[in-house]
Amino acid sequence: MKDYQAYMIDLDGTVYAGSQRYPAAKRFVERLQAAHVPFKFVTNNTTKLPRDVVRNLADNHDIHVTAANVYTAGLATADFLDQRAGATGKRTVYVVGEIGLRQALAAKGFTVDEDHPEYVVVGLDSDVTYEKFAKAILAIRSGSTFIGTNSDSNIPKARGLMPGAGALVDLVRYATQTNPIFVGKPEPIILNNSLAQLGVPADQALMVGDNYHTDIEAGIHAGVDTLLVYTGVSTPAQVAQETIQPTYTIDSLDHWDLQEGPVD
Amino acid sequence: MKDYQAYMIDLDGTVYAGSQRYPAAKRFVERLQAAHVPFKFVTNNTTKLPRDVVRNLADNHDIHVTAANVYTAGLATADFLDQRAGATGKRTVYVVGEIGLRQALAAKGFTVDEDHPEYVVVGLDSDVTYEKFAKAILAIRSGSTFIGTNSDSNIPKARGLMPGAGALVDLVRYATQTNPIFVGKPEPIILNNSLAQLGVPADQALMVGDNYHTDIEAGIHAGVDTLLVYTGVSTPAQVAQETIQPTYTIDSLDHWDLQEGPVD
Repeated sequence: MKDYQAYMIDLDGTVYAGSQRYPAAKRFVERLQAAHVPFKFVTNNTTKLPRDVVRNLADNHDIHVTAANVYTAGLATADFLDQRAGATGKRTVYVVGEIGLRQALAAKGFTVDEDHPEYVVVGLDSDVTYEKFAKAILAIRSGSTFIGTNSDSNIPKARGLMPGAGALVDLVRYATQTNPIFVGKPEPIILNNSLAQLGVPADQALMVGDNYHTDIEAGIHAGVDTLLVYTGVSTPAQVAQETIQPTYTIDSLDHWDLQEGPVD
Repeated sequence: MKDYQAYMIDLDGTVYAGSQRYPAAKRFVERLQAAHVPFKFVTNNTTKLPRDVVRNLADNHDIHVTAANVYTAGLATADFLDQRAGATGKRTVYVVGEIGLRQALAAKGFTVDEDHPEYVVVGLDSDVTYEKFAKAILAIRSGSTFIGTNSDSNIPKARGLMPGAGALVDLVRYATQTNPIFVGKPEPIILNNSLAQLGVPADQALMVGDNYHTDIEAGIHAGVDTLLVYTGVSTPAQVAQETIQPTYTIDSLDHWDLQEGPVD
């Protein structure tokens, strides 16, 4: 096995399941910390600030990291648009989304223009309205570039599977007949940006997650080796159907040795 | 040409364009009335009550008809669910939509159940919220039958092309991975129900409209002859690409004779 220089790790289904603790994940994170291996939690969440992700891990899961260990699709979207805008000075945006996304864009110098923004960014927004959708759609039809934070159809909540960012994006796609640029997993943009911040080339990093269609596909698209842990969405029977297999599969993060790889 | 016993006529783009009057359409309606030929305006609108459609035609277009001349996708949805529910007693519904749809369903004895409705009906709703979408999605995922009033991607307004009912339906489709039953044009349900109310068999009626992909396709699906009038969405060049052609095409409703058909 390669001696991976950095890890990118999914959260829900991999490090915990909602409020349920995964003790093996806590031990895994602590092994990474003890070995001084750089890692980032790479999540499609755009509603939370990194400090809120850190607090949730500490308060509810006894896992202690810093904001630098967190890379959300909100941050990734802001970094992507920052690179794309470059020195053009065109940093106007209309946002359907919550604080995690809004604050990340503001931190990169983007200001809101409701009528003629350079970019329309659509992410999860539990306060979305018809009027917000209308503004997004009219702007895209007038030439704004359409960005979707991620294509997730649902987010698991206590009530059940609630509408995800991808569902909101899909309404806008349908009404504009325009496909968005997606940033989050399974697209490679979020992983490419995360690798740049970790300072590690793609072939020296490992993507760890429970969901073949987001985590593992993102790794495949970004040229990063993948570790699928069967503690969440994907099952061995489902994964067996896939043409491209994960680099490694395990049943518990206790079965992953940082030097040896998968162990029983 | 057949001597058609009844006409079904689209509104926007055929009888008027928003607030713009179409004098030839007014003359056409008056010729139908003078000849005592039954007709219905068949529209995908679900937000208005029939009496509001009548009032708009009278006040803004000097076209004078009764509510019996109006068949909206709201009424068609209520009629469809009325037939489907039959004597089962299962008449509970969760509605994303406005008064035209809500009142039509209430008139057929359907009551609202936000948690475990027999049917979830999604139509245009300018007050839609994330919570309304969430209720619809959770119910469909729990087994409610998913109905879409119509699949229109947009509705033309003074501000531009606003999100249509189909866009709202598509969000729910994406988040449930379930395809709805659509009632409005281009599906045949709305025309079949309209024919039943007119008391005329499909092969004795004519569907008149400006939009190939809604009006004409609805006629084709329902086995009704079609008359495309080039006063709205579709152009001769676009229609030339279609495998199935309209039965007749004209440039103005003045070019349609009730006995002779298309005339110059």
